[in-house]
Amino acid sequence: VETDFHRRYASREMLEIWSAEQKFRMERALWIAVMKAQSKAGLEIPEAAIKDYESKKSIIDLESIANRESILKHDVKARIEEFNSLAGHQHIHLGLTSRDVTENVEMLLIQESLELIRLKCISLLHSFGERIKEFKEIPIVARTHNVPAQVTTLGKKFSVWADEQIFSLRHLEELMNRLPIRGIKGAVGTSTDMRSLLGERVSYFEAEISSFFGNENSSNSTSQVYPRSIDFEVIATLVQLAAASNNFAINVRLLAGLGHLQESFSDSQVGSSAMPHKMNPRLSERINSLFSVLKGYLSMIENLVGEQWNEGDVSCSATRRAAISGSFLVVDGILDTAIDVTQGLAISSKSIENELQRELPIIASSEYLMLLVKKGLSRELAHKQLGKALRDYKDSGSSTTEDLYEVLSKNSEPSITKQELQSILDNPILLTGSASSQCDLVVTEIRKWVAKVKGAASYRPKVSI
Amino acid sequence: VETDFHRRYASREMLEIWSAEQKFRMERALWIAVMKAQSKAGLEIPEAAIKDYESKKSIIDLESIANRESILKHDVKARIEEFNSLAGHQHIHLGLTSRDVTENVEMLLIQESLELIRLKCISLLHSFGERIKEFKEIPIVARTHNVPAQVTTLGKKFSVWADEQIFSLRHLEELMNRLPIRGIKGAVGTSTDMRSLLGERVSYFEAEISSFFGNENSSNSTSQVYPRSIDFEVIATLVQLAAASNNFAINVRLLAGLGHLQESFSDSQVGSSAMPHKMNPRLSERINSLFSVLKGYLSMIENLVGEQWNEGDVSCSATRRAAISGSFLVVDGILDTAIDVTQGLAISSKSIENELQRELPIIASSEYLMLLVKKGLSRELAHKQLGKALRDYKDSGSSTTEDLYEVLSKNSEPSITKQELQSILDNPILLTGSASSQCDLVVTEIRKWVAKVKGAASYRPKVSI
Amino acid sequence: VETDFHRRYASREMLEIWSAEQKFRMERALWIAVMKAQSKAGLEIPEAAIKDYESKKSIIDLESIANRESILKHDVKARIEEFNSLAGHQHIHLGLTSRDVTENVEMLLIQESLELIRLKCISLLHSFGERIKEFKEIPIVARTHNVPAQVTTLGKKFSVWADEQIFSLRHLEELMNRLPIRGIKGAVGTSTDMRSLLGERVSYFEAEISSFFGNENSSNSTSQVYPRSIDFEVIATLVQLAAASNNFAINVRLLAGLGHLQESFSDSQVGSSAMPHKMNPRLSERINSLFSVLKGYLSMIENLVGEQWNEGDVSCSATRRAAISGSFLVVDGILDTAIDVTQGLAISSKSIENELQRELPIIASSEYLMLLVKKGLSRELAHKQLGKALRDYKDSGSSTTEDLYEVLSKNSEPSITKQELQSILDNPILLTGSASSQCDLVVTEIRKWVAKVKGAASYRPKVSI
Amino acid sequence: VETDFHRRYASREMLEIWSAEQKFRMERALWIAVMKAQSKAGLEIPEAAIKDYESKKSIIDLESIANRESILKHDVKARIEEFNSLAGHQHIHLGLTSRDVTENVEMLLIQESLELIRLKCISLLHSFGERIKEFKEIPIVARTHNVPAQVTTLGKKFSVWADEQIFSLRHLEELMNRLPIRGIKGAVGTSTDMRSLLGERVSYFEAEISSFFGNENSSNSTSQVYPRSIDFEVIATLVQLAAASNNFAINVRLLAGLGHLQESFSDSQVGSSAMPHKMNPRLSERINSLFSVLKGYLSMIENLVGEQWNEGDVSCSATRRAAISGSFLVVDGILDTAIDVTQGLAISSKSIENELQRELPIIASSEYLMLLVKKGLSRELAHKQLGKALRDYKDSGSSTTEDLYEVLSKNSEPSITKQELQSILDNPILLTGSASSQCDLVVTEIRKWVAKVKGAASYRPKVSI
Repeated sequence: VETDFHRRYASREMLEIWSAEQKFRMERALWIAVMKAQSKAGLEIPEAAIKDYESKKSIIDLESIANRESILKHDVKARIEEFNSLAGHQHIHLGLTSRDVTENVEMLLIQESLELIRLKCISLLHSFGERIKEFKEIPIVARTHNVPAQVTTLGKKFSVWADEQIFSLRHLEELMNRLPIRGIKGAVGTSTDMRSLLGERVSYFEAEISSFFGNENSSNSTSQVYPRSIDFEVIATLVQLAAASNNFAINVRLLAGLGHLQESFSDSQVGSSAMPHKMNPRLSERINSLFSVLKGYLSMIENLVGEQWNEGDVSCSATRRAAISGSFLVVDGILDTAIDVTQGLAISSKSIENELQRELPIIASSEYLMLLVKKGLSRELAHKQLGKALRDYKDSGSSTTEDLYEVLSKNSEPSITKQELQSILDNPILLTGSASSQCDLVVTEIRKWVAKVKGAASYRPKVSI
Repeated sequence: VETDFHRRYASREMLEIWSAEQKFRMERALWIAVMKAQSKAGLEIPEAAIKDYESKKSIIDLESIANRESILKHDVKARIEEFNSLAGHQHIHLGLTSRDVTENVEMLLIQESLELIRLKCISLLHSFGERIKEFKEIPIVARTHNVPAQVTTLGKKFSVWADEQIFSLRHLEELMNRLPIRGIKGAVGTSTDMRSLLGERVSYFEAEISSFFGNENSSNSTSQVYPRSIDFEVIATLVQLAAASNNFAINVRLLAGLGHLQESFSDSQVGSSAMPHKMNPRLSERINSLFSVLKGYLSMIENLVGEQWNEGDVSCSATRRAAISGSFLVVDGILDTAIDVTQGLAISSKSIENELQRELPIIASSEYLMLLVKKGLSRELAHKQLGKALRDYKDSGSSTTEDLYEVLSKNSEPSITKQELQSILDNPILLTGSASSQCDLVVTEIRKWVAKVKGAASYRPKVSI
Repeated sequence: VETDFHRRYASREMLEIWSAEQKFRMERALWIAVMKAQSKAGLEIPEAAIKDYESKKSIIDLESIANRESILKHDVKARIEEFNSLAGHQHIHLGLTSRDVTENVEMLLIQESLELIRLKCISLLHSFGERIKEFKEIPIVARTHNVPAQVTTLGKKFSVWADEQIFSLRHLEELMNRLPIRGIKGAVGTSTDMRSLLGERVSYFEAEISSFFGNENSSNSTSQVYPRSIDFEVIATLVQLAAASNNFAINVRLLAGLGHLQESFSDSQVGSSAMPHKMNPRLSERINSLFSVLKGYLSMIENLVGEQWNEGDVSCSATRRAAISGSFLVVDGILDTAIDVTQGLAISSKSIENELQRELPIIASSEYLMLLVKKGLSRELAHKQLGKALRDYKDSGSSTTEDLYEVLSKNSEPSITKQELQSILDNPILLTGSASSQCDLVVTEIRKWVAKVKGAASYRPKVSI
Repeated sequence: VETDFHRRYASREMLEIWSAEQKFRMERALWIAVMKAQSKAGLEIPEAAIKDYESKKSIIDLESIANRESILKHDVKARIEEFNSLAGHQHIHLGLTSRDVTENVEMLLIQESLELIRLKCISLLHSFGERIKEFKEIPIVARTHNVPAQVTTLGKKFSVWADEQIFSLRHLEELMNRLPIRGIKGAVGTSTDMRSLLGERVSYFEAEISSFFGNENSSNSTSQVYPRSIDFEVIATLVQLAAASNNFAINVRLLAGLGHLQESFSDSQVGSSAMPHKMNPRLSERINSLFSVLKGYLSMIENLVGEQWNEGDVSCSATRRAAISGSFLVVDGILDTAIDVTQGLAISSKSIENELQRELPIIASSEYLMLLVKKGLSRELAHKQLGKALRDYKDSGSSTTEDLYEVLSKNSEPSITKQELQSILDNPILLTGSASSQCDLVVTEIRKWVAKVKGAASYRPKVSI
């Protein structure tokens, strides 16, 4: 499924995993492993024949396979005949059905992809971590309902995205430990043909082949296909893993709109073909755009969940062909882009400060409220009086501390002293509560994750145009 | 976006429409049209320069364009510079923004694709029509809740799918008449730059360029992009257009499960790599599978509806890149496959008849009910008595008319005579009500549609493996 | 389906349409119309009996119906027996199946709802129109990629949402004209039972009943149910109709974030239980939130499209029960809220102006570009030079015209004169191109729509908390 | 959110959890816990006041709350004032923001609901287990592509659904262990106000309140809201948990279509208002229908994932209000219905046997293939010959072993002996491979799950009509 679309956004490594060649290579490895296991279980397969298959396993002629498929109208049968013809034997696929091959190979590709995604999530976490440390003491206006609310720190913002990423990473690791391999179970999941071939020695075979898969979670009972709710959990996990990136990207766009930050911009780059001055958060927009694609792929897979007729059919095939590889390629692009944006982000401290100075007298309102409550005013009354006072102050258009003091003291009794007020306005960082210590907690957590996976800290994505 | 996935399912014609080459060709045609219109509106562009562009417009070097894009990090700018470099001038894209190019070209590609889809829908309708005529008097067990209900005809089944197709075709035609072209409106939709260039003569320009688009539904007011709810209606219409095919395919699978019919099967074909006897309704399954993909693409586009920030950005770009072309390629594959299956379907009259004979004594129940009501029995009482009688008859395992008569007459008073019963069982076609005349109505309607579009009746899809 | 959720957001009128009582009333009206039509077609139904039904049709005892249903385990049968028991006869539902009742009543409710939605869309259009007229000459920074791009007018922003609304309204009107009524077709769509009852006089019956429905688009061929792709188009149209509201709401939130505007805020209102100063665009957020719900309902209905087995079953029932009424109630809430927000919006001219003054020197960049092109500079070269110059100027932190002139003239030859520059900066409204005339076009169009529907201009929604 | 819709399908227990009363009860418990913790941390709150709140906590007057909300236009503020007014104090909600209350209470309701869902999943597993044991040695035609493929056992079919259920249950348990509580973090997640109130003693407070939540997974850093990707994993898990039920239900419908089984049917029940004989798998259809609803709710929640602006707003509120409770109520209905259908299912051994006898000669094809391979014939050649032979045999319409032998021996060399053939046809159970032992594995696994949860084995749902 290497396409213009996916080549544009996905990494070389992920494209490699989902290439036709890689699939065919793994199918052949599986067929060879089956022959060896069958041979150990007593089926007569000449050792020389297995060697012949081994020697040809890397010769992948996509055109020849396509030609066979157009005649046989069956894709796996075409690959069987191609491999047989290369090796000059007919020993592969004995006792197997097509899905014995494809279901297992797909799951192996999924597992390989999940490993890669895990690396990238942790690499993103690492990049977030660097930014948290850098920004954890920079006060900035926090917004709820997109309007100024209280004070937080810029690092705290990154820590929230990191924390979301960590929760999803826990799910990923659990899933990776839990994912089963369907195994070699035949056309309707009963292993009937393999039993007919091998009799009671079928158990030798199964032990042998399960060590090839290297997975202990073999299904106890499956039909021709494994349940598509497993695919669903996999792809839903990818959506979950991309959520922090999407949140990050949306907020980069919002902060860029306020002039607080900007994506990296190279000298040769063009922002707009019409407007020469433009520098746009277009990679963040790309993340959001790819996230919409990812959710669409999930919806494709969702259509297959719980919809299996009898022992199975191919009403899931084209869907999975599009959506599984598609999801991995897209989430790969999202994560690489998020890492790239995080690392390249330029901050405008001046813009951040200006906004804070402008909004502080108003958004310190809950601080005033706590002060009044501690002075013995009842909470709901103080809330009401402050609301009116601050709205009046805002409407007046004034920005002097004097006027603010005036309006605050006019409305409530007991009131805030001028000194108290000045002290609040002079030290916005004191209004950021636990922001900094929360940053520390998250950074500590990130360190544990980064330590687990080699290469996560040093990974640098190549994000195309 | 030509991919393994889409090459496998879509037609040559549709792949051509959504190729990079076709997009670039249309962009260049648009740039040339703009220069000509600007020239007419008084902007000084040397005629020779326009000729130079004209003479190079077909030279499309994908690699060179890709190289430029990797430096400029802006796809349209790369294509501008490529075309300028080929022609040796810098006259294109004056007063334009990238979206002036891409939004319009995409809409032109959409319109072209809709034309092709319309042809295929009508061709499918034609094929359904042939089958309706062939099968309209073949009685068959109708099922509700998947269990035998009454008698219908096989042709009637096809007429229902055809009728669904016709309703959606009406929507398609209305939509095609209603689709607007965004036009050349500049970076934020105000035509500011073109006005700066051309002054009041901008109206000449606009008249000229709108005749290039050949579309009278120009938007009255748009921003940088046209509203994505228009894309949404387009793709939702494709889902609607594919619904009849999906219904058809599911029912082919159900009827194949009863042995009543079978998809065409060639001699060289292989049904299953494990089970030599298999002949499967796999193309119908493919239709269902592609429909899941199509709905996923709709969900991608749905994520963009009503989500435009300000005058626009590229948070819709990757999504539309994947989903718009993808939807057309997939619906194209669905329709081609549905036509192919309809034309190739083989019916087993014997299987259909056997089932009818087996179920008729039971499923004539509403006929018995009407008879009793006409004899004066109250409806709800008769309903209750018949229910019990027929369940008893079924449990007895009997299949003789005698026993049926027995059980029916035992339970109700007045009752059904033996002669009435025999007459019902002897003439299942009399129990099909208006089925045949409804078939005629639908066939008449189909004829009108087929007459409208040249080539619809003779179209034969090339459905790959 | 009247629920806490829907009562919170939907209007009294829409809740009324989708109440159990309204459904049962319409079912009874249909049963009575059927009896009358059957009587005309010669079936013996005592006139007195019909009168008895008529006299009881408004007595709706939900509890009694629920009790019957718990015994019969069939909802329609319960309502038949209730109505029979009230009237003391058993003449209703002769020749009918449950779906003859429910499918038609649902479509009548859909049509009634669409009328109401149309009124509200046009009312919203009217409100947009008032704002367009008010704001069409107020220049404001236009943003692409959420950062300043060019100048537009505030009215122009509203005109774009209005234009999107108009496109979707056209779809709505076409759909309303096209929607078919399934009609009385019996258990599998063949009208078999009615034919058995009435013989050839069935055609009298059908003419009579179709005049009851008042709809000429009767289906030519249907099964027990009408195709769910019709429901899909209906609900997809609602999503499309809500798109402009959603776009509007998102942009209210963005503009509120810049301080440019604010939703209406009453004196008794509380913005935040923690922060006394808060005034939030929470109704706009509600619109966005309800839109997510609406799209979820569409996805429910989408699951039914093209998924009909044989002549039908109830695997669509619970889904339609949740999603159809739900969609109408939610879109109703969206439109009412959008009208309310539009009418109550307060603008901060000062904030809008401040931003414009700050950004103008930079965002006039395409104006500079056109000027240089007209002076003979090649477009791509001028683009490059301007890009560099303006980024330098921005980085310098300066905001004087002098410095701007400096940086512009240093970079290009020929250059922009000081006078030209001043003239651009002094007249931002001149940089808004066709914005004002586009507003006029849209207002003219709106007037036509408003003239068509009585009450649209005067409609005032009651938006709850 | 108790609605007609949900009352129809959900259980009393689940409706109770998601009632307004239960939510308000938990909010009040939280407010009281906060006061006690604050008091311990040194804030002056009179013990008598806390007692007054305690004494009024169960008086829930929905109407009074609604009235307050209509004035304040803020739902939580309304509930604060109601509780204050009941108690005659203003000590609750000090240092809190609304989301400190709602986010935590919702998570507690989610956890409670997950416990209930877990019980029902295991109860379903138990019911599946009973059926597996009952049916594990009953041979039945296995179908792929909905047409006869090989032989399996009826118990094996149930074991596949059970195995799917077990995989999803593992996810559920991991999720339940991993779900965090947001905790009391204030308006933007920095705990600023609580710190202002309590100073350094805030840590006492936090320890105290976290023991109220009884959850160790407190978030390290959150904003006003917890990340909606957590909601997404919760609801996606519900979809996953319902997948086995949906698969089961679809296959009940398919098997009912073949006459092999039937849902329980009581004497007073009516299958169809038109056709007295009908007995329909309508509960299975309901499961499928509710599953479409459930997926729609997931799609609502999906719209919120990764879409948080800044520190949060209410653009998620209406969506979560509809979708979270809705999902739990619907999945509850699905599971209850699936348990009910499983327990009530009636099997027709005769129908199952008849089909097997009819299809066996053909579907033993892979058995013939293995036999020929063991005799030394090359696999692909044997496959080809058998395919042709069996298609010929089928077309001939014959059903005698003699003819089958004829056609098989004519086509291949070496061939199958008459004795071998007879032995295959006489013992279909021998063609079911590992079906029975797989059933045993699954039953063993089920036993472990049932042992873990009290009441799972004895649970009997009350499925309404």
